[in-house]
Amino acid sequence: MKEYGNLTTAELTSELEATRKEYDEICALKLSLDLTRGKPATEQLDLSDGMFATINNDFVMDGVDVRNYGMLGGLPSTKKLFAELLDCKPEQVFIGGSASLAMMYDLISKAMVFGLPMSVRPWDREEHIRFMCPVPGYDRHFTINRSFGFEMIPIPMTEDGPDMDLVEKYANEKGVKGIWCVPKYSNPDGFVYSEETCKRFASMKTAEPDFLIMWDNAYCVHSLYGEPAYLPSIISLCAESGNADRVFEFASTSKVTYAGSGISAIAGSQDNIAWYKKLAGAQIISYSKLMELAHVRFLKDKATTVKHMAKHAEILRPKFEAVISELNLQLAPRGIAHWHDPKGGYFVSLYVMPHTAKRVAKLCLDAGVKLTAAGATYPGGEDPEDSNLRIAPSYAQLDDVKQAAKVLCIAARLAALEQLAKS
Amino acid sequence: MKEYGNLTTAELTSELEATRKEYDEICALKLSLDLTRGKPATEQLDLSDGMFATINNDFVMDGVDVRNYGMLGGLPSTKKLFAELLDCKPEQVFIGGSASLAMMYDLISKAMVFGLPMSVRPWDREEHIRFMCPVPGYDRHFTINRSFGFEMIPIPMTEDGPDMDLVEKYANEKGVKGIWCVPKYSNPDGFVYSEETCKRFASMKTAEPDFLIMWDNAYCVHSLYGEPAYLPSIISLCAESGNADRVFEFASTSKVTYAGSGISAIAGSQDNIAWYKKLAGAQIISYSKLMELAHVRFLKDKATTVKHMAKHAEILRPKFEAVISELNLQLAPRGIAHWHDPKGGYFVSLYVMPHTAKRVAKLCLDAGVKLTAAGATYPGGEDPEDSNLRIAPSYAQLDDVKQAAKVLCIAARLAALEQLAKS
Repeated sequence: MKEYGNLTTAELTSELEATRKEYDEICALKLSLDLTRGKPATEQLDLSDGMFATINNDFVMDGVDVRNYGMLGGLPSTKKLFAELLDCKPEQVFIGGSASLAMMYDLISKAMVFGLPMSVRPWDREEHIRFMCPVPGYDRHFTINRSFGFEMIPIPMTEDGPDMDLVEKYANEKGVKGIWCVPKYSNPDGFVYSEETCKRFASMKTAEPDFLIMWDNAYCVHSLYGEPAYLPSIISLCAESGNADRVFEFASTSKVTYAGSGISAIAGSQDNIAWYKKLAGAQIISYSKLMELAHVRFLKDKATTVKHMAKHAEILRPKFEAVISELNLQLAPRGIAHWHDPKGGYFVSLYVMPHTAKRVAKLCLDAGVKLTAAGATYPGGEDPEDSNLRIAPSYAQLDDVKQAAKVLCIAARLAALEQLAKS
Repeated sequence: MKEYGNLTTAELTSELEATRKEYDEICALKLSLDLTRGKPATEQLDLSDGMFATINNDFVMDGVDVRNYGMLGGLPSTKKLFAELLDCKPEQVFIGGSASLAMMYDLISKAMVFGLPMSVRPWDREEHIRFMCPVPGYDRHFTINRSFGFEMIPIPMTEDGPDMDLVEKYANEKGVKGIWCVPKYSNPDGFVYSEETCKRFASMKTAEPDFLIMWDNAYCVHSLYGEPAYLPSIISLCAESGNADRVFEFASTSKVTYAGSGISAIAGSQDNIAWYKKLAGAQIISYSKLMELAHVRFLKDKATTVKHMAKHAEILRPKFEAVISELNLQLAPRGIAHWHDPKGGYFVSLYVMPHTAKRVAKLCLDAGVKLTAAGATYPGGEDPEDSNLRIAPSYAQLDDVKQAAKVLCIAARLAALEQLAKS
């Protein structure tokens, strides 16, 4: 099998014809498959079936009746659990509502109205705010930025995390107020930030005193193969560098127990958490301690949680491997795409031939396979290379994932051949 | 028994001495009682024991697996339930998180950063914002105002609701952006707004196009005696007056099922709800549908909810009656206090002799009975009359409530006598 780049004109014409036929045949199957969002599959949700049984009409945890008001910021046991998961101290944790995304939004909203502890003024009094966004990245982070009117600076990702030379350069510019990070099994590439990257984040100079690292540790225990990857504690590193208040970390149980119906946590320096708690005191009496109780009884500690995540991995792994294996089979020999083989998280990030990602997504759609919109992993939905596609294999059944991966690869090949034929 | 105002100097001296003795005797009992917050009692929380059993590993409602992402704004069945409770249409409802207070805060926060649909500019671009606060009122509403830096305009309460002449006067002033209301079984007085009050709210002229009525219907089904009192639908009235977008209504199940661990709802015009939902789309994927499911299965509809609330009333009623009966016994004949006998809600609002409320609270505290701080029901904690005390009889056991009410009345008498003796 030849790489497409080495095909003669005649070979290209015949390969294009053959691939078009292949595509038409798979279209005839009238599939209806959806790989758009990183949703857990039903079998994964079933893994938490025992959770409510743990309540068993015993509503007391840490000596507190969880059914009543009080204990803003969470119960000691819940803080302890998240401190273990996030490698920080319980007093550095604030337990929030059912969605970490809402806690991130709330923090930015508080920065806008009140300013952060080290702000000179509230952010909505600033002339213009810029925020760094590693790309490809998580579209909902971009949406929060857009909602608050921030200009987004795309920062290319590497296997070790965002391009830190660029990060440090922009951090030194006035008006650049922060950066979004998914440091472990990054969305969508599945990269884990290296220790050096984390240290540079912690120690870099910033022009703004209230520069904010939004450390969205969404996949802290979401390994596909054994123990979760090592990630240094950004909270400790920042403290050691004398920049303790630079980072807020976020996590939730959305992909541990119930998506959007679990519990979330914010972590940071004790000063940051005290500041946040004080403002939150005007906002809420306490988040759902009932869900705290159910989660602490069910997940117990990090070891038990990691065991629970291994069951998720058993369901997820074959789906990821099905995608990767199809990519290896169809795309690798043609030299028209590249990807990272993720060891955790929820996505396979595929880079098809530049200027064909939108075409590939359209071809997939016409063949009955829905993908996340091409470009969605870039601010404003604009991938300058038109190359990246985020594949979310978690929700569909294994056979459907296999089928969808086949369609995807045929579409990627066809789009590449069309492109080559044009030039 | 003589009214204290009619005592001769000699009688006053002897009464003061006798009451001081009574007070010392009750101090000697070294009580430790707490009537500070409107928390449900354990027996009330037990009423919802069956709630999680309704899940029974069947997680599908309205054809949706509630354990996964999606359905921002709530499931059809949940909207239908709250539409019944709040006398509006399901499409006028947005289902939120575990606390309606957080939804109120969030709305004000959105007004600050983005402005309301009818705002000329975001509120944080306004020179100065004033907000009306019926007094006595709910301290957490005042705290939200203070947190966002609003000036508060106290509006005296009447049995029919806030003094509407004053409300209409201030609504016609520039910079007055809204008002907080607890329209049914008001906090703390337990008044129910009259139909005329509601109509005047709906139809009044306002200087600001984005004048906002925060209609905190916290006690919509919280009657102590049979069916909940009638309250007109403010959403319908506003629509009829051509001011459909003037009001946002709030409710939660905090005092129906679990305090701070239930579900909440925002209601308003369809345009307002669509606007809110659009902004919320940047903030969260969906609130806890799992809790929606449990609540809908357990509370079913308005009739079932009202029946459930009757069980709460059975537990609450004797406590309220114990307080009222003690007030009638000790304070009525002395002519030194007045109060409203509430038919629902969570409080008895007691007006002791002017300039003695702080003293009464202190005497109670020294006798081992904690009350909500005197003045807490006024913006800035300043009751200009120093007269109002909010009594929360729900959480304590009945015998303790009786005991505490006794202490309270002795303290009120002693403080009044001290005051009279000084003048």
